[in-house]
Formats: sequence, C-alpha cells, structure tokens
Amino acid sequence: MREWIDTYDERTWQTTDEESGTVRYALIGLGWWTIDVALPAIESSELGEVTVLVSSSSEKADRLAAENDVERGLSYDEFHDGDAADRYDAVYIGTPNAYHLEYAATAASLDKAVLCEKPMEATVERATELVETCERADVPLMIAYRMHTEPAVQRARELIEDGFIGEPVSVYGHNSQPLLEMIPDPDQWRLDPDLSGYGTSVMDLGIYSINTTRYLLQREPVSVRSNMISAHEAFDAVPDERASSLFVFEDDIQMISTASQHAHEDTELKITGTEGQITLQPAFHGECSMDLSRGDVSISVEHETFDAEAEMREEFDYFADRLLGEREIYPDGHHGLGDMRIIEALHESADRGDVVTLDL
Amino acid sequence: MREWIDTYDERTWQTTDEESGTVRYALIGLGWWTIDVALPAIESSELGEVTVLVSSSSEKADRLAAENDVERGLSYDEFHDGDAADRYDAVYIGTPNAYHLEYAATAASLDKAVLCEKPMEATVERATELVETCERADVPLMIAYRMHTEPAVQRARELIEDGFIGEPVSVYGHNSQPLLEMIPDPDQWRLDPDLSGYGTSVMDLGIYSINTTRYLLQREPVSVRSNMISAHEAFDAVPDERASSLFVFEDDIQMISTASQHAHEDTELKITGTEGQITLQPAFHGECSMDLSRGDVSISVEHETFDAEAEMREEFDYFADRLLGEREIYPDGHHGLGDMRIIEALHESADRGDVVTLDL
Repeated sequence: MREWIDTYDERTWQTTDEESGTVRYALIGLGWWTIDVALPAIESSELGEVTVLVSSSSEKADRLAAENDVERGLSYDEFHDGDAADRYDAVYIGTPNAYHLEYAATAASLDKAVLCEKPMEATVERATELVETCERADVPLMIAYRMHTEPAVQRARELIEDGFIGEPVSVYGHNSQPLLEMIPDPDQWRLDPDLSGYGTSVMDLGIYSINTTRYLLQREPVSVRSNMISAHEAFDAVPDERASSLFVFEDDIQMISTASQHAHEDTELKITGTEGQITLQPAFHGECSMDLSRGDVSISVEHETFDAEAEMREEFDYFADRLLGEREIYPDGHHGLGDMRIIEALHESADRGDVVTLDL
Repeated sequence: MREWIDTYDERTWQTTDEESGTVRYALIGLGWWTIDVALPAIESSELGEVTVLVSSSSEKADRLAAENDVERGLSYDEFHDGDAADRYDAVYIGTPNAYHLEYAATAASLDKAVLCEKPMEATVERATELVETCERADVPLMIAYRMHTEPAVQRARELIEDGFIGEPVSVYGHNSQPLLEMIPDPDQWRLDPDLSGYGTSVMDLGIYSINTTRYLLQREPVSVRSNMISAHEAFDAVPDERASSLFVFEDDIQMISTASQHAHEDTELKITGTEGQITLQPAFHGECSMDLSRGDVSISVEHETFDAEAEMREEFDYFADRLLGEREIYPDGHHGLGDMRIIEALHESADRGDVVTLDL
C-alpha cells in the first residue's frame, strides 16, 4: 500500500528527460484555458517551453506574449504565412473546433508536430481530413486527452487490467457545468454549430466520459442510443443543452452517460464489475479522486495537489516525450477520429430515435 | 440546520397513534426478507402486529410461527380456505411475483387489506387484474415501496419541491448485487421468468431507481430506451443479467439507469438540477446517505441507524396509518401499475431495439 501511494503519480510512460532537449511550442487560440492552464503547465515542465503565441490580431498576440514573457506574438495570418517558424517545433491548437483543421494544415506544411484539442474538429469529415493532412506531411499528431496521463485514471486502468473489479459490467459517466454562468454570453462559440460542430454538451463534455471509458476498458463501443434536448433559448442553435446516452461496448459492457452545459457542475466516472467498483469523482477537471471497492472493503484515494494545470503538464510532457524519444503516440489522430465517429453516431441516434451501430 | 437534523426522520404523514388501534397481519411467503426484515419491523412498531404466518406447508408455517412467537401458522391451502381469517386484518404478500395475484384475490374475497411487494406481479395483465380484484372487493391495496417513507428520500423530495436543485435536469439510478453469491442456487425463482415475470434485474432492482425517481420528481416517464444482456449461463432464461436504460420524463428531464443481479453491490440515485444536486448512496437497502450540493457548497448527511428493518417499519406504519385513519394510499395499485407498464416498455424496447413511448 505504501509503495502504491508513493508511486501514485509516477510517469510510467516517460522515456526521456531534460537532457533529451525540449519541445518549443506555438500556442494557437488564446482563450482562458490556453493562457491560464496550458501556458503555465508547459512553463512548469522540463520537456517544453512556449516560444510563440498566435491569436486573432498581432496586437492581442504581442500583448499576451509580453505579459507572459513569451518570445513572439503572431496574428493568425502571420502564422499561416510561416512567420517565426524557426522558433517553434510544435503547435498546440486550442481554438474553436471548426478552426482546428486550418491550423493543423499550416503546421503540417511547416513540418511542425501537432497537439490538437478535443474534439478534433467540427465533423467527422473535417477530422478525417485533419488526420490525412498530418499523415501526408508525416508530422506527429496527438489529440489532447489529458485523462490518459492523469494519475488516478492510469492507476484505475492498471487495476481494471489486473482484474480488481472482476469482469467489467457497466460504466456511468457524467459531466455537467453551468456554461452561461462561466461565460455569460449567449453568442459564445460553444453554442454556435458552425464553430462547435454537431452540438455542445456531448462535443465539449460528454467526450470525457466516452474517451476515458475507451481508454480504461481498452474496448470500443459497438452501438449507441441517445436523447438530446435543448429547452433554454441560448441553446436554440444546438440540439444538446442536455444529452443522455446508452452505449454497448465490446464484450457486452454497458455504459450510460449524461452531459449538460446548463446544469450544476459535477463530473463522475464509475466502473462496476462483477467483483468490485472504481469511482472517479470529481473525474475530469483536476483533483481527480478515486474510490475503490471490492467485496466489503472500500478505500478512498485523494490527490489534492493534482489540479487541471498539473494534468496539462503531464499531457504536454507525454507529447514531448513521444516527440523527443520518437515513440508512438497513443491518442493519435485515428484514436481521436474514433470519438468523432461515436459523437456523430450519438447525434444521429438522437435525431432518428433509434440505435446506431458502430464499427471502429 | 439544527431543526432540520432534529426533524430528519419525522413522520410527516402520520395521522394516527397507538390509541387508534393496531393492524393485525398475515405474512404470506416466508423467505428471508419476510422473516428477518418484515416481521421484526412490524413487531417493533406501535401500529401493527403479526398474528398469522402463511407458507407452503402447515409444518413450515407452524414451525416459523412457534419460533417467532406468532399466534398461528397456515399452509397456502388453509389460507385460501379462509382459515383463521378472524385473526388478521391485512395481508403482506412477499411471495415470488407470479403468486401475488392469487393471494391478493383470496385476501380481497376475505375483505382483508393488501400490502403487496413490488413489482406487483409478473406481467401488466396480471397486475391489472390484481388492481381490479381489490377494487371490486373494495379492499385497500398498497404496493410496498419503502423508499416513499425513507427519511432521506422524503427530505430529498421536499428539497426538490423547494427548488434546492433549481430545475431538475438529469437523474442517474443504479442498483446492482451479486445474486448468485447471496443465494447460491441457479434454480431460484428470480431467474425463472414464470415466477419473476419479464426478467430479473429490472423487475427486482431497476424498479427502485424508476419508482424513487417517479416519487421524487412527481413526474412520469414519457419514453424509454433499453439494452439488456444475459451472458452468464445462470441467466439463460431471463433477458437481463444486466440492463441499461434511458428515460425521458415529463418536462424534458432525462434519466439513465443500470441494474444487474450479477455485479458488485452498489446502489445510487443522483438528481442533477440547474443549480444543485442531490445524491443518495447507498440509496436503496438501508443506511441511505445523502449528499447535497448547491453552488460551491456541499453537505453530507448520514443516518446510520436507519437500516432496512427501520425502512420496513416506516412502510408498515404508513400502511397501518392509512387503514386506521381511512386515508388515501399514495403508492396504490394504479401507482404500482405505472412501474409495471414502464418495465414492460423497457423490455419491449430492449427486444425491438428502439424507443417505446408511454402515456401513464
């Protein structure tokens, strides 16, 4: 037990160290997540540094670069023109979903590695083009699933592999937040299907339950059912102010999930097996806590200092480690495309009212 | 807060007391639940007493009557013949589901009130006949939903009515247990559709999530989707070793639930609203604990001494209070029939693979 706790946040994936060099990033799309979470995460790591910030205008980019002690600010146009391309090795794309493809394409044409936020793009078609563009240019592409390197999630995956819960039976995933309280603007991009894609709650929140379950179970869903409802007027343009879904995974494992951009904040992932159970709550936005039970015995594991910034540091360092060590990336473009296909199928099921089968 | 805790397990429904008399029960179907939980629950109450035990043979009934200091034991045949009918006022039916109707019919013909375990019967048709039989004989009928008088559930209902969680958005219900470890016999009645009805996990476990949600929200489901899977050979005869379901309730409230008779034990009911959340875990088998959150503040409420026997005492006393005070019963036959229709619809959805609508 002591050893287990002492190695709780150990990086089992790390193959390089600071002597292998560092990855220099251009950060594209300077919203609060990029500036307040991603940027300090890279600055606190040993394998990465931020050298360029890319935003809508030179003014904004220059100002944020100066404020954050970053070498260079670029407008989107300057980025597309290849300005300062010798100053960075990789891009982190944190723009609205529907812009991911164009920045990835330019990065690929400049021979830069791409770390792209999830969901990959607005539609399966555009996500597919993104994957193909990176493959043709032979640049590494990773989708930013920070749960894969979250310590609790990694330990949960090992426990499931070890048979801690017996055979997995069912999974419950939930992710909700009051978006209009967090960003009090009904015209924000997450509520605009031209920018967000199929919708808002599943694309932005439900994807955490879906992807983390794929990672934990090492299995894919084979069918989905979904119901989506938008009642509040701010959600008129998207179908899923609230979404509930039912998945069947390989080996007859059932999953149910709910997601909403217009509800009290809560994140939970619970995996029930024939002999035990693992619950992550909160699950998806830092300070991930884990409850383990098997038979009559239960253990609670809290990891209080591991916040969202720490999760992003792990993710960036995993990406840097893959680049510096020339290793395969687990959450690559094809992995991310799986989520896009699943989300498309959920929206199709909600539209049609019946089951949609998948073959990932 | 002090007042809230001091009145936490107050009986807001009680209209009578021991001076109103007592209800004398014949208990029918002497499994472990009846003998170990229901019987001591009545014996510890002031509004009820057990005077008759009814079982398959006179020998078993007589032996259990003697062991438990009960006046009289009856075989099923003797009960149907009306033996000792002057010794009891009401029957509690705790037999396998498919036998409920015949005992209720005899009780009705003897002018006895009926407290019938859930689910009401094996099928909607038989449950309907049960309701009509009691109505024709003009005897009171209550379905044994002990969650309705569970203190945590009652307080949760008041909080939801008061707007504590804002508008309800989604509900998660889960109920699982390792049936074959609890009763190591593959030939038990819960795995025999002739005795259990549509199936096992939803009929026996999922019904808790469904009914408690109907009670808490004071709303009915309008559509259901379900997936059911039986993989283990002991579950060959029933479709739902594991079941996952998706409901839409009135006012666009979404509910998802899982149930399994072949999984680690866990019960949870979580209601998420626009402004807050209420979680009951454990929810359904005693010692119901409640977590309340609204905005950034959370409270945990534990009620450690309120076990399954205490829950049954509340249920029996509510029933006795209704009889002695000649008041309306909330979980009456029509209420129970609602669950039967919902469960039938879930099985139909799982069979057909698409949405089934309901008009309760």
